[in-house]
Amino acid sequence: MKGSGKNRLKKRVSEPTLKRLPGYLYYLEKAKEKGIISISAPTIGKDLNCDATQVVKDLAVTGVKGKPKVGYNTYELIHGLEDFLGFNRTNEAFLVGAGNLGSALMAYQEHQVLGLKIIAAFDVDEKKVGTHIGGIHVLEYKKLFSLSKRLNVKIGVLTTPNDVAQKVAEEFVNCGIKAIWNFTLVNLKLPGEIIVQNTSMSSDSAVLIRRLNDSEVTIKN
Amino acid sequence: MKGSGKNRLKKRVSEPTLKRLPGYLYYLEKAKEKGIISISAPTIGKDLNCDATQVVKDLAVTGVKGKPKVGYNTYELIHGLEDFLGFNRTNEAFLVGAGNLGSALMAYQEHQVLGLKIIAAFDVDEKKVGTHIGGIHVLEYKKLFSLSKRLNVKIGVLTTPNDVAQKVAEEFVNCGIKAIWNFTLVNLKLPGEIIVQNTSMSSDSAVLIRRLNDSEVTIKN
Repeated sequence: MKGSGKNRLKKRVSEPTLKRLPGYLYYLEKAKEKGIISISAPTIGKDLNCDATQVVKDLAVTGVKGKPKVGYNTYELIHGLEDFLGFNRTNEAFLVGAGNLGSALMAYQEHQVLGLKIIAAFDVDEKKVGTHIGGIHVLEYKKLFSLSKRLNVKIGVLTTPNDVAQKVAEEFVNCGIKAIWNFTLVNLKLPGEIIVQNTSMSSDSAVLIRRLNDSEVTIKN
Repeated sequence: MKGSGKNRLKKRVSEPTLKRLPGYLYYLEKAKEKGIISISAPTIGKDLNCDATQVVKDLAVTGVKGKPKVGYNTYELIHGLEDFLGFNRTNEAFLVGAGNLGSALMAYQEHQVLGLKIIAAFDVDEKKVGTHIGGIHVLEYKKLFSLSKRLNVKIGVLTTPNDVAQKVAEEFVNCGIKAIWNFTLVNLKLPGEIIVQNTSMSSDSAVLIRRLNDSEVTIKN
């Protein structure tokens, strides 16, 4: 199975599919806990409120095949998803900006599968430096460079205020970081090979509120 | 200007545009602080790392027009964006699940423009009930129903563990909530008129890690 996983690495999977995969993984872990050893695509679809055809298509990225009338082997599928997502590797990350959101992410990863492990956090605020959050040290920001050179960390989590985001992102790149999880509102300008994933609370909130206002107008009309 | 804003309420704006609007708002607030009273689309585009044509198209949703060779009036544009996004209204919300992520959102909104105001949080954990986070009370979950009937809150923030998410979402609907901000991995099954905005940390993390692994394979080949 490892072989089939490797072969599939070359195929670029769509973002909507990728985003659904952790949901399958969570669901299958729960099924495993209940002692369910095989599970069909229609059952998964019914429980997750989506079409069985989509389930089959999504899960095909793992290379794991279901058997007719039996379905997928739960263990094999969990392993396949973890392998595909890279969640079975240690994806070490540095975090810069140990404010409310940064602290939440540090505490969060004790309980939830994020697929990455924040190994140190950095901040310029002297009150935060030297503290521990969720078992993770908050270090002086100026130590980022030397530490990243030593530890060869590839992922940076950016939870700074907006006005320093670009500068910190550039420093991440100088430090050898290849992928940045950007929680700020800033559209980062970085070399093309750097992977950036934006998660903006304000943007999602804007969509929610605007859709609510739209629907209220529709009802009133 | 209010009139033009109202007229545009009927047009459904695309999600990518909506998601970019808080970024413009943040940028313009900063420009206002610097005393910049008019600003052109090419300047905005240059600073935000996007095309001037896109800036013009995005900002058109506000109904605010720029003047040739001068650009937009900063104040007017800020007002137009706030009006369009509904950020100048009090969008009151209830939050259920005062864990790490829920607590972070409660603390976060003191500092950042989320466009919504969490007025109370609810949890079943007795240790959390009675505490304050970011000035917001954490109340017993069973009080959700009576309080929502009294306060007519339309927005629910869902930061519970995944396994109770569907149940709590249904309770939100019973309570008259019209829009749910879902931070869980669960694909909620709700009546069609309920607006759901999903923000999944695990999904975004999955995209980031997978893209990083993809790029490493490409480099090795």
